[in-house]
Amino acid sequence: MSAGLHRFFVPPGLLGGPRIALTGEQAHQISRVLRLKVGDRLVLLDGSGHEYRVRLSEVRSSAVAGDVDDVRVSRPEPRLHLTLYQALVLRDRFETVLQKGTEVGISRFVPVWCERSVVLRGDQIDAKRLERWRRIVTEAAEQCERGQVPEILPPVRFTEALMQAAAGPALLAWERERERSLQAGLRAVLVQRPTERDDRNTESIGLLVGPEGGFSSIEVAAARDAGVITVSLGPRILRTETAGPVLAALALYEAGDMVPFVHQLADSAAPERA
Amino acid sequence: MSAGLHRFFVPPGLLGGPRIALTGEQAHQISRVLRLKVGDRLVLLDGSGHEYRVRLSEVRSSAVAGDVDDVRVSRPEPRLHLTLYQALVLRDRFETVLQKGTEVGISRFVPVWCERSVVLRGDQIDAKRLERWRRIVTEAAEQCERGQVPEILPPVRFTEALMQAAAGPALLAWERERERSLQAGLRAVLVQRPTERDDRNTESIGLLVGPEGGFSSIEVAAARDAGVITVSLGPRILRTETAGPVLAALALYEAGDMVPFVHQLADSAAPERA
Repeated sequence: MSAGLHRFFVPPGLLGGPRIALTGEQAHQISRVLRLKVGDRLVLLDGSGHEYRVRLSEVRSSAVAGDVDDVRVSRPEPRLHLTLYQALVLRDRFETVLQKGTEVGISRFVPVWCERSVVLRGDQIDAKRLERWRRIVTEAAEQCERGQVPEILPPVRFTEALMQAAAGPALLAWERERERSLQAGLRAVLVQRPTERDDRNTESIGLLVGPEGGFSSIEVAAARDAGVITVSLGPRILRTETAGPVLAALALYEAGDMVPFVHQLADSAAPERA
Repeated sequence: MSAGLHRFFVPPGLLGGPRIALTGEQAHQISRVLRLKVGDRLVLLDGSGHEYRVRLSEVRSSAVAGDVDDVRVSRPEPRLHLTLYQALVLRDRFETVLQKGTEVGISRFVPVWCERSVVLRGDQIDAKRLERWRRIVTEAAEQCERGQVPEILPPVRFTEALMQAAAGPALLAWERERERSLQAGLRAVLVQRPTERDDRNTESIGLLVGPEGGFSSIEVAAARDAGVITVSLGPRILRTETAGPVLAALALYEAGDMVPFVHQLADSAAPERA
């Protein structure tokens, strides 16, 4: 639902001056795949909180150059910083979670080996797989116009995930929870949130979502012992790839993050004009 | 996230007595695809608000029979009845909306031809396509343990969708909305909702979601003229196939529907025992 300019995350340090130059895969993408021409505009980001609107002055398959038209403040990252501890599930489902979770506003993904994680033979999580996952969240962040790319950590076992998650407030989505609604859980962990938008008061919540067969009862008991709050996602059973993005959307909604955004020119970051 | 019994919607009228018999596609599915055996259990539903737990007494590829063990009250349908007017989008995206929207709790889908709907050559919506869509929502309802299958109406043009939607309270998700948050929109339309769960007070809301390129400004103006409330889905731009399910989840959350469910035996609908 957008008809905006194409957006690209570029390595830190490339932006800041009045001109930019891109090479490699991004030059190929711009010149050959998107077939942009001299005079066309695009947006470059480096995760610094600003975005650079650029007019192309040179387009070749190996190198693209342009002039910075203006610098704007990026859409703010959620003040509520969500880490999704997502059980490893079938490959396309896991990639759906990364894509939809990025759109919705998750800040960090931690893949988790759970007792019931379905592991396909030879389906190991190697550096190439992590690289593929990072490309998926980068493209999703470009598409949804986020100013930063969410982080993806290497996979950990459930007990390690629990140690990380239980260091702060954390909720575990459990289809057999009979008492506590998600709203009750969220309100318990968000109770001390600041009422003013203030980046110094960023809050973090961990969200734990199980594999296709659910968390085992041993895992749920261990989570509760560690202080993680089990919550129900409501009267219908969500698929594992639906649960994480929906849970994140509801958490951000409850925290007041789902509000409209209006673009502003950056005061202090305007480039020097040639 | 479930490890429950297999569930099947069957035609109305088949359930009610102490024994059941299935033929055709469902007998094939149970005997050959799922390879269930005599003595295995499954759940049958007919959308009446009860579900029948059945123990198989006979399993052949052409006919399956079983005895009703108990009858339970189905998970309740949302008191807030959501109709999603979803712009026609690329085929797999539309099917994602149907599947995820059913899980989340949408009651009715209306496919809408919008100005920017991408129509593939030959990609007409015929009876076969509608049948495929109904199979997708039926399977999703079985999987998420809903007691009813959402309705899918035949596609209509945007102006017709607007007439239907504007007959009641309706929200249109608009990525260029700068003023009204989803929460403000929901609270405006839910303001008169009853505080007690009471089926006689079912409320209906229409939700309008545009195609990949968004609604046109003419469509947005027409919707506003008709009394539809435009809302922002927050600072990040959701893909068209993410917007509907997320919007529905947030509406049900705001309406208080996302609460745990506990199974009960039906008092009045217990089958006569042989």
